[in-house]
Amino acid sequence: MAHQQHQETLKVLHECMEACNHCFDACLKEDDVKMMAGCIRLDRECADMCGYLEAAITRGSAYVSELASVCAKICDDCAEECAKHDHDHCQECAEACRKCAEACRKIA
Amino acid sequence: MAHQQHQETLKVLHECMEACNHCFDACLKEDDVKMMAGCIRLDRECADMCGYLEAAITRGSAYVSELASVCAKICDDCAEECAKHDHDHCQECAEACRKCAEACRKIA
Amino acid sequence: MAHQQHQETLKVLHECMEACNHCFDACLKEDDVKMMAGCIRLDRECADMCGYLEAAITRGSAYVSELASVCAKICDDCAEECAKHDHDHCQECAEACRKCAEACRKIA
Amino acid sequence: MAHQQHQETLKVLHECMEACNHCFDACLKEDDVKMMAGCIRLDRECADMCGYLEAAITRGSAYVSELASVCAKICDDCAEECAKHDHDHCQECAEACRKCAEACRKIA
Repeated sequence: MAHQQHQETLKVLHECMEACNHCFDACLKEDDVKMMAGCIRLDRECADMCGYLEAAITRGSAYVSELASVCAKICDDCAEECAKHDHDHCQECAEACRKCAEACRKIA
Repeated sequence: MAHQQHQETLKVLHECMEACNHCFDACLKEDDVKMMAGCIRLDRECADMCGYLEAAITRGSAYVSELASVCAKICDDCAEECAKHDHDHCQECAEACRKCAEACRKIA
Repeated sequence: MAHQQHQETLKVLHECMEACNHCFDACLKEDDVKMMAGCIRLDRECADMCGYLEAAITRGSAYVSELASVCAKICDDCAEECAKHDHDHCQECAEACRKCAEACRKIA
Repeated sequence: MAHQQHQETLKVLHECMEACNHCFDACLKEDDVKMMAGCIRLDRECADMCGYLEAAITRGSAYVSELASVCAKICDDCAEECAKHDHDHCQECAEACRKCAEACRKIA
């Protein structure tokens, strides 16, 4: 059961990392990049932290709880920022971040 | 089709990162850690590189090909080292590394 | 002044990352690797977190405080573990971790 | 002598990582962010790779040469892109990338 939750958490983290990095890439291709600056910044923060936490979980790190707590906060902020923009990549990213924040709080 | 291959590559990279980090963790718990030193070292190299390449692919990096080429080499070496040991985590890691090396060569 | 503290923190983080990775490498070459297993594990945790925090500071991350708090905890634990071993690389690592934990607490 | 070159390389890598991340941050605050999109993208690529190579060198990785070769290429591209822009942070980043590309080629 612990193992199942672990696998589910890793899946959600991975999807969030992927959605954030895709959003980062897509935002930089938009016409009004300036409007996306906050999004670009948070996408990087969030993708990096999700990737870091994935690695920490898989290596049996003793600091998963502390890292998940930081990750949840970044996911919340990234979800809030992305939700402001109508682009599909932003809306999808916001949704992935919300799910990930929730998963992180469970292990924080 | 490009998208499908992309998703398949990410899946294989993720499984390799996970197998390597799990093997790193498990090797450090074995009785004869000394015999596992090469494995521990390569597990870290390989897990880190797979994670790095995953992130690079998802952010649309222009350097995926070069990074995949380095990753393939590290996967080959890690597969070779892990294959020498009978522990389940080593055998599973060797198998994941072999699959990952192959996937990396396709995009290198 | 803020800039000076920033540079000093980056320097201390970098030295800690370097000391931890050097200790990781050196521990894996010791005769009694088993005795060093906890050290090897914490060296990786600590080096990775210090490197992550360095990057976060330099990119103007909004999460430096939270990350520094986690980093301080990992540095404390790594310092405590390394201090148990007489090897020069462990003693030097313990010292670098102590300094780094202190620097992290100032920005946490 | 090997040790001195090693320390010099780490210093140059660190300065490049710092300059790229600072440029990333500053570009996102510019009025015409759109014009800086290529710069923002390459700043992240380059900062991440320099940080990765720093860590690899300090842990005695067997893949420093291959990683340095990729890093040199990214530094070259980032230097070329940043050099196009008059902002101080871009010009300083271009200079740091040029020095870093050269240092990477020496160990590639």
